[in-house]
Amino acid sequence: MDHAAFDRLEAYMHTQMQDSAHDREHVYRVLYTALDIAAHEPGADADVLIAACLLHDVGRAEQFRDPQADHAQVGAEKALRFLLDEGWGEDFAQRVAACIRTHRYRSDAPPASPEAKILFDADKLDVTGAMGVARTLLYQALVGETLYTCTPEGDVCDGSGDAPPSFFQEYRFKLEKVYDRFFTAYAAEVAAGRRRAAQDFYASLLSEARAAYGPGRKSLRAHLT
Amino acid sequence: MDHAAFDRLEAYMHTQMQDSAHDREHVYRVLYTALDIAAHEPGADADVLIAACLLHDVGRAEQFRDPQADHAQVGAEKALRFLLDEGWGEDFAQRVAACIRTHRYRSDAPPASPEAKILFDADKLDVTGAMGVARTLLYQALVGETLYTCTPEGDVCDGSGDAPPSFFQEYRFKLEKVYDRFFTAYAAEVAAGRRRAAQDFYASLLSEARAAYGPGRKSLRAHLT
Repeated sequence: MDHAAFDRLEAYMHTQMQDSAHDREHVYRVLYTALDIAAHEPGADADVLIAACLLHDVGRAEQFRDPQADHAQVGAEKALRFLLDEGWGEDFAQRVAACIRTHRYRSDAPPASPEAKILFDADKLDVTGAMGVARTLLYQALVGETLYTCTPEGDVCDGSGDAPPSFFQEYRFKLEKVYDRFFTAYAAEVAAGRRRAAQDFYASLLSEARAAYGPGRKSLRAHLT
Repeated sequence: MDHAAFDRLEAYMHTQMQDSAHDREHVYRVLYTALDIAAHEPGADADVLIAACLLHDVGRAEQFRDPQADHAQVGAEKALRFLLDEGWGEDFAQRVAACIRTHRYRSDAPPASPEAKILFDADKLDVTGAMGVARTLLYQALVGETLYTCTPEGDVCDGSGDAPPSFFQEYRFKLEKVYDRFFTAYAAEVAAGRRRAAQDFYASLLSEARAAYGPGRKSLRAHLT
């Protein structure tokens, strides 16, 4: 890919990225990480991979406005249209769109090509470790969710079971489970090295929250007449 | 304080708390933590402390709308008016308002009474450890700030020096420095026990972000023609 083509893809991406959890820095991390994975897992077409990484989240704004919309599906359509309008060939545009369509967890649309698997893994690596925690918290704030919920008795829920939506619930149902869902061995290895940071953070936050609701809550009950 | 009076203070607080970083759970943590500190540091009036904790952030919405407004000052005035309207005595209302006025870092208005020092410490404990990290990230998202910024050469800044606003900058200039600013020995001790969780998270996030900008960025430069 030449610099001018890259710049046009990048400029279009910049116009589409809006929330802090899926901002342009997320796109650069996915792009660079994907190229790092590709260096360890041969067989990927670099141009398809670069275009797919740059455009993979261009459907995010639509899903943010309407949670029923699937940003992978919307993004694939927008990317296809953009690439064809820009004069890229039909085959190239379709290969890029296929990567974007399958970069989300969905059992009915798994990534098929080497580029699609690498995009999927690079995007999922950004949900592991401290980065996954940080991005999830940014997103939780934007959609107005809390860190944790309490039981009717006032105890802090750890997010397991049928707990209502919260950061702890997102951690237990999504962040904690991402580590064994990679397609490439290299990404799985990087993810494993980051796992501990996320586990430690969750454990510390839960312990701090529960400590805050401990002795002081008993003192309050004792004090009120 | 009787249950009915507590319920009226709590109900007013609920109407005023809006953003996820300063939501009602933050107020409950501050309240319970303050009562826990008070059990270790004698001399505080429990009623003044309870009212001050419940009302300490009622000026947040005004500061969020206008960053020039000081939520401690606005909150103190709102709390004073509310307490007088509710029939509390002038002396009680003034003591509560004084706690709220001085709960923020400001060298010209340090907390003076035992209750003011305990509110200050309980509120600052919620900026330590994993909780401090989590709440800062929630707030960063709401004000549209990024996790980190990059140098013109594309390297990830660690937030020190004259780095632009970001989570890393907030960590280096605020979160990292909270640990030696407590008024009570008990709060300082609790804070020290939480410090490691915040340090580890910052180190992991910085290392993950820098790793993402490493070999893949070089591959991209090599690939573009």
